[in-house]
Amino acid sequence: MSSYKVGFIGLGRMGSRMAENILAAGFPLAVWNRTIEKARSFADSKGASVADTPKELASKSDVIISMLTEPWITEDVILGTHEMKGKAVIDGFIRGKVVIDMSTNHPSSARKMASALGGVGCHFLDAPVMGGPFVAARKGLTILASGDEDVFEKVLPLLQSMGQKVLYVGDVGTGMTVKLLLNLHLWVMMASYAECVAIGAKLGVTPRKLTEIINNTVVKNYVTEFKAGKILENDWKPDADMSVAVKDLRLVADVVQEVGAPMLLGSIARDLFTATMHLGFSDYDVMAIALLYSRMAGVDLYSKT
Amino acid sequence: MSSYKVGFIGLGRMGSRMAENILAAGFPLAVWNRTIEKARSFADSKGASVADTPKELASKSDVIISMLTEPWITEDVILGTHEMKGKAVIDGFIRGKVVIDMSTNHPSSARKMASALGGVGCHFLDAPVMGGPFVAARKGLTILASGDEDVFEKVLPLLQSMGQKVLYVGDVGTGMTVKLLLNLHLWVMMASYAECVAIGAKLGVTPRKLTEIINNTVVKNYVTEFKAGKILENDWKPDADMSVAVKDLRLVADVVQEVGAPMLLGSIARDLFTATMHLGFSDYDVMAIALLYSRMAGVDLYSKT
Amino acid sequence: MSSYKVGFIGLGRMGSRMAENILAAGFPLAVWNRTIEKARSFADSKGASVADTPKELASKSDVIISMLTEPWITEDVILGTHEMKGKAVIDGFIRGKVVIDMSTNHPSSARKMASALGGVGCHFLDAPVMGGPFVAARKGLTILASGDEDVFEKVLPLLQSMGQKVLYVGDVGTGMTVKLLLNLHLWVMMASYAECVAIGAKLGVTPRKLTEIINNTVVKNYVTEFKAGKILENDWKPDADMSVAVKDLRLVADVVQEVGAPMLLGSIARDLFTATMHLGFSDYDVMAIALLYSRMAGVDLYSKT
Amino acid sequence: MSSYKVGFIGLGRMGSRMAENILAAGFPLAVWNRTIEKARSFADSKGASVADTPKELASKSDVIISMLTEPWITEDVILGTHEMKGKAVIDGFIRGKVVIDMSTNHPSSARKMASALGGVGCHFLDAPVMGGPFVAARKGLTILASGDEDVFEKVLPLLQSMGQKVLYVGDVGTGMTVKLLLNLHLWVMMASYAECVAIGAKLGVTPRKLTEIINNTVVKNYVTEFKAGKILENDWKPDADMSVAVKDLRLVADVVQEVGAPMLLGSIARDLFTATMHLGFSDYDVMAIALLYSRMAGVDLYSKT
Repeated sequence: MSSYKVGFIGLGRMGSRMAENILAAGFPLAVWNRTIEKARSFADSKGASVADTPKELASKSDVIISMLTEPWITEDVILGTHEMKGKAVIDGFIRGKVVIDMSTNHPSSARKMASALGGVGCHFLDAPVMGGPFVAARKGLTILASGDEDVFEKVLPLLQSMGQKVLYVGDVGTGMTVKLLLNLHLWVMMASYAECVAIGAKLGVTPRKLTEIINNTVVKNYVTEFKAGKILENDWKPDADMSVAVKDLRLVADVVQEVGAPMLLGSIARDLFTATMHLGFSDYDVMAIALLYSRMAGVDLYSKT
Repeated sequence: MSSYKVGFIGLGRMGSRMAENILAAGFPLAVWNRTIEKARSFADSKGASVADTPKELASKSDVIISMLTEPWITEDVILGTHEMKGKAVIDGFIRGKVVIDMSTNHPSSARKMASALGGVGCHFLDAPVMGGPFVAARKGLTILASGDEDVFEKVLPLLQSMGQKVLYVGDVGTGMTVKLLLNLHLWVMMASYAECVAIGAKLGVTPRKLTEIINNTVVKNYVTEFKAGKILENDWKPDADMSVAVKDLRLVADVVQEVGAPMLLGSIARDLFTATMHLGFSDYDVMAIALLYSRMAGVDLYSKT
Repeated sequence: MSSYKVGFIGLGRMGSRMAENILAAGFPLAVWNRTIEKARSFADSKGASVADTPKELASKSDVIISMLTEPWITEDVILGTHEMKGKAVIDGFIRGKVVIDMSTNHPSSARKMASALGGVGCHFLDAPVMGGPFVAARKGLTILASGDEDVFEKVLPLLQSMGQKVLYVGDVGTGMTVKLLLNLHLWVMMASYAECVAIGAKLGVTPRKLTEIINNTVVKNYVTEFKAGKILENDWKPDADMSVAVKDLRLVADVVQEVGAPMLLGSIARDLFTATMHLGFSDYDVMAIALLYSRMAGVDLYSKT
Repeated sequence: MSSYKVGFIGLGRMGSRMAENILAAGFPLAVWNRTIEKARSFADSKGASVADTPKELASKSDVIISMLTEPWITEDVILGTHEMKGKAVIDGFIRGKVVIDMSTNHPSSARKMASALGGVGCHFLDAPVMGGPFVAARKGLTILASGDEDVFEKVLPLLQSMGQKVLYVGDVGTGMTVKLLLNLHLWVMMASYAECVAIGAKLGVTPRKLTEIINNTVVKNYVTEFKAGKILENDWKPDADMSVAVKDLRLVADVVQEVGAPMLLGSIARDLFTATMHLGFSDYDVMAIALLYSRMAGVDLYSKT
């Protein structure tokens, strides 16, 4: 399978960057997108072919990748559970091929797709990614792949064309599970940093001073080193907008509630990101949770005093 | 003041290590401790002199350092507010000298001591530290010093004898404030990691696998890289026991409540560390908050399944 | 429709009591239950007939009532979405008849059933109840009915045979929505009372003294007046066991998360009831959340000191 | 002590109403107030005498009552710990007399005052009240008295002149403790009701409909029956303004943190009332926490849809 043909589904902010990197690595590429014009425009400018349906895309590719925003849309496109009935990936010629879902999705959805595709002799991997559109553009994603390890080995060069680090993490669904856990930790860290920033301002320590000091100690982390800039520059143009945090945390909450584990900090974080969205910051970067905190604390983060 | 004499108050797990490093750097050292035998034994074995009271210690030293566990004890020893009335540091000959409180303390207590000492012509710095006893022993502390900057410059070599990194962070009280904020962020991160670990176990991902993956991504942080070992090794011998987390978070809560800022995540974390202590883990390392979570989630962190 | 025939689905702890009261009011009754022996034994001892399937039950009844534990089971039995395909209520002769779902269910599920049944000319009401098995047995339920008001008027005598108070609350789905909100408030009140009881014990005020005083003031409420007895008598035989609280709060959380509203207190309550269940109290009455709190506070609720 | 002379300290919104009722019951009354003009104007219009200092007031009264807003002010006026040094109640002729603190105060402060006053042969009761200014005006307060029971019996007629219900609740400090616990429960109930109202609105159930239904069920309580009116009438004129809730919950948090018990729901409630205050509702009635929730949920409580 050294020069396999790749089919890519979902050319949003993430998917379009990932598809470009696949092309750049020399894989023949066909694309499909719900809004088909997006697929045509991508294909025209980048040099890919377009399929009319996921079914057609699947039939003419060796490996099919999906990168979509909602679990039910992914299931529809892969399994034909809704509008795509009869036109889905599973309806194409896919025996012996590989489907890779790289969306952030429900682990049980991954297992359901693996099982359904397995029924027609097709392999499935879930391989969600860490990193936003800018990271995707510069091939810097971390990819958490799971499923059959032999299958993983076969598609590794393809995954490597999109990410800096490709980790094999276990049985099918594990990638999704781990992705959700990493997200959970990250969003809580972000909320916690926002809480500290507002309290600091209230106590007379500016966000800049606090952050500089944190980054001079072991407490420093991804949020204080990279996301903090949004606060410090008072620049809220989104790398990821509020809906990303809310969507992620809802998905985590669903999965966790299903197995019945307490998620005290994660639930608070979800509600605070949700409130931030409703307070008028839906188009802001996720870091705008600091603006919610500043309002709740009655403090101006940019006061000179 | 190139070869000033140092007086050290408080020879607990932290203080004794710091005092040793001061001696190792060649400063003449006198010590005092509430339980005076501890001071005598330290002095005998390490080569320091002993004072009978904080007052006497202050009189014969150029720089006086306090490293104590409770705000009110520090105030008593420095200002003689309770049992030390008449025998406190402020009762000694201290005009022109420098008192440095390196305990984790209330910012307003720092300002109160600065003001009282200033009234008798003595300088005051607050200079709390990041790092536990083992870090202290190998001179690895990060020191957050605040107060008059000229005074800071004068005692810098002394502070450097105890820590790897010495930061000047602003007006008196700022060191304490920043220390509390760093702690707040760190304890919430620790609680969040514990939450993720228990949820992961519930979802079939072992703590070891989850942690290895986290540490392979940008989400990694001090907790996942260093504190996680306690969970992974199932070894709960305390670097810092539960009371440290609870004490820290209570102090933060006091300060934050006083200025009226929301501390949603921090309050939950404080209550969870408190509950961990009450569930029979008071002698365990702070990371045992993961054991609380495992019980609340009904999952064994070390299950082979 | 003065002497309509009633079909009852679901003879669990709640349903069996409700069905008995329908019989006692003189309505001809047919029953169906997943475990069909339960239906036979009920029919034999109480004087009802048994149907082999929901479809058959629906065909021979004028009004069909469902009282089941899980939303998906209700949908299956009514609409045949899973195992009951072809044997569900909707597959019977039901034109012009009325289906009433009295389970605690998802509002959108109620609307979905109303729409599907409406498509074949059948009416639908959702009419969830307040009160447990003992309240049901003595006809003391409060019933929150919603849907077409004319239909409601027609079945009112039937509803009154099961409850002390029957409220018409609005369009279809409103009954379910209101039920969830009442539950949400009630479970948080219960958790709050448990929190107060443990804190009181820690401060030297026994649960009995605290509760007596509360019940002498305006602060008294259903929990302090009726549920408190479980704590005071140290008698944890369940009126409703922990799974009831957890199931209710999960359903609420699902509905609330879907519309994106913060539910800070409700999320904490859900997690605490979940933790109580995992700490070994799954067979205890819901009020055992006070035992979780007593452990987290390190205090014996029955100490004599 | 049948016709004892009463000295009243603190003529705020609560105290002035209580003092009027004492006068109306026929007790000779002297008053003192920090802002002495308030005392003069009260005395002139109502027929009481004025004392220049708490000391003088205490000397000429048999029973001294304090009704003040902050623990430290009460201690100052009774024990002379700050500005009132030498002019406090304890400095008067008070052997064999009774001091009653009716403020909402710290239990340990009550015990401290009892001990100090006991040292000079004076009795002390803590007797905080349930109810606001309007309740106080119509003699409707519930009084939670604690201390020596014989002393309580002697002053019972005086307490009865101010309240509808006077409860003896135990040893000194118990009144304060119980008051804090009742408050804790009540504030959490209020926050929970606000949470339900906002979620209800989001789900299409108006606050009015939800509240009417609740009040038709066992879930009804003081908040849904009496405080709900503020929301339903969109009338935020304070019976008690936000600072009352915040002050109460801070005091509770202090006491609870000191003994180390988890207060998860109470901490969230405190932070939400605090946030409501900072969002511009500080002059609104406490029930305005529902406005915070409506903003966090992005829903208009008064929408017609």
